[in-house]
Amino acid sequence: MENFKGYISLIENTLARQDFDQEPIELYQPISYILSLGGKRLRPAMVLAGCDLFEGNLDDALLPSLAIEMFHNFSLVHDDIMDDARLRRGKKTIHEKWNTNVAILAGDAMLVKSYQYLNQVDKSILAKVYEIFSKTALEVCEGQQYDMNFESLSSVSEEDYLEMIRLKTAVLLGAALQIGALIGKASSSQAVALYNFGVDAGLAFQVQDDLLDAFGDPEKFGKKVGGDILQDKKTLLMIYAREFAPVELAALQKENLVGDAKVKAFQKFFIECGAETKAIAKREELLKSALNALASADAKNDKVKTQLTNFAQWLSHRDH
Amino acid sequence: MENFKGYISLIENTLARQDFDQEPIELYQPISYILSLGGKRLRPAMVLAGCDLFEGNLDDALLPSLAIEMFHNFSLVHDDIMDDARLRRGKKTIHEKWNTNVAILAGDAMLVKSYQYLNQVDKSILAKVYEIFSKTALEVCEGQQYDMNFESLSSVSEEDYLEMIRLKTAVLLGAALQIGALIGKASSSQAVALYNFGVDAGLAFQVQDDLLDAFGDPEKFGKKVGGDILQDKKTLLMIYAREFAPVELAALQKENLVGDAKVKAFQKFFIECGAETKAIAKREELLKSALNALASADAKNDKVKTQLTNFAQWLSHRDH
Repeated sequence: MENFKGYISLIENTLARQDFDQEPIELYQPISYILSLGGKRLRPAMVLAGCDLFEGNLDDALLPSLAIEMFHNFSLVHDDIMDDARLRRGKKTIHEKWNTNVAILAGDAMLVKSYQYLNQVDKSILAKVYEIFSKTALEVCEGQQYDMNFESLSSVSEEDYLEMIRLKTAVLLGAALQIGALIGKASSSQAVALYNFGVDAGLAFQVQDDLLDAFGDPEKFGKKVGGDILQDKKTLLMIYAREFAPVELAALQKENLVGDAKVKAFQKFFIECGAETKAIAKREELLKSALNALASADAKNDKVKTQLTNFAQWLSHRDH
Repeated sequence: MENFKGYISLIENTLARQDFDQEPIELYQPISYILSLGGKRLRPAMVLAGCDLFEGNLDDALLPSLAIEMFHNFSLVHDDIMDDARLRRGKKTIHEKWNTNVAILAGDAMLVKSYQYLNQVDKSILAKVYEIFSKTALEVCEGQQYDMNFESLSSVSEEDYLEMIRLKTAVLLGAALQIGALIGKASSSQAVALYNFGVDAGLAFQVQDDLLDAFGDPEKFGKKVGGDILQDKKTLLMIYAREFAPVELAALQKENLVGDAKVKAFQKFFIECGAETKAIAKREELLKSALNALASADAKNDKVKTQLTNFAQWLSHRDH
């Protein structure tokens, strides 16, 4: 993300100035720990980009950008408990390093702290910003619930799947941009256009996630390719495969293949039945919709517009 | 709580008008469930009382009062997971009725919803109200952490214990009153005086809780008297006993008594060593301090002032 280096370094500097060295240390140490594990800081960068796009003062967007980053990390901490994940960014999750109670309470405190960072925006937009943020936060909870629900369903529709990833992932990108735009004094409708850009780009990002997991280049991907296939996850590829070739899919599933043989067989099947082609088409449709929304935001700063265009392209076509 | 019947019925009516019948039901049903279990609604009543004390419009305080009730219930849901509590208000806790993941996520959504209810206050006080609420919410998390920390300590000082109960319980009563006062257009210093009233009354309430658990009338108390004694909890009585008669306390603990014999022996010991007297004195000191703070708030509405005085008396002297 060459484009956003400047934003990300501003965010890292602001984060480094925050004091999490507070009492009780059992509560604040885990917060400091999870934030120190890094991550790409893409979501807070979106707050700065949204502000910059309308030539707002980036200083005004710094603490609100931490609200988005803090919220994102809160959701990871609690999701990791629910998913019983052992690692996050290659290090132990909070509930593994400490215990579940510590992770619950640290997450709660992070959610509250995200609201504290948000309280720094100008009073003229405070109610609106809180409204967007709380609506989004609730949607992220709903998305996590749908995701958990899907595990026990035998099949999921394309529509339900896209709605789940919209809630769980995409709306936070949209809200980050919308809040940034409002801080940058964009009009309400310009900020909504930017929200739509973020949501569609976020959806394209998630579709590409499914594609990468199945077809990524093992040398670039960083994770083991085929993880979703091995876990029988209901990805978009699986949903399309069930739609296009239900009989063949059922037959393939009955073979009870394991390991690389299973991954290879499903890769071949996803390609042959047209699921891969359809997922790519869906991704491109979402990317196009995102770029249309960006254009309709009628923003001032062409340089940032180009950055956001490149960013959406990267989200949709990244190889890792 | 005869005094507050009007407030409580307003709160129940407002709560009944909220729609928790939303999708995904796996997320919203537990929220609806826990709110339907009742409770005294004392905390939201404090928002209305704070507003009424300054002759503000109670309608403006209704949704913000739900913010306090929703937050309180959020903290119960997550604390119940951490304490592995099976029952809440005589019914199954959420993590018992569903599971831990449901309870974590429902709690998260409740915390967000509490902020949504708060967003209804007038824009002129919104930033201040959010500041008070978030500070308080973080303190409640800190109080819960201290409470958990105390379990693994061999002894706790009076100062640390009072600080723990201040954070875990008292500040929320204070914040409810302070926010209500601001909605009722009290001055900033009047609202702070009311906060101090709430905090000291809340502390007195918790001290009385310790006294009731050890010395309550079994017929009125509702719970089994002596629960804290049987669990060797570090209550204020135990802290004073350790201060006044450490050698005798150690000797009594070495006897390894169980059941009623243990309860009776500790009751006798708490009285003889002066721990009960000191706890009563502490409670009365806190009550006096609360009433002084109320007087200094210089409020308009004498009827509500009397109600709040009676309320603080009831919190400190209740028998159940």
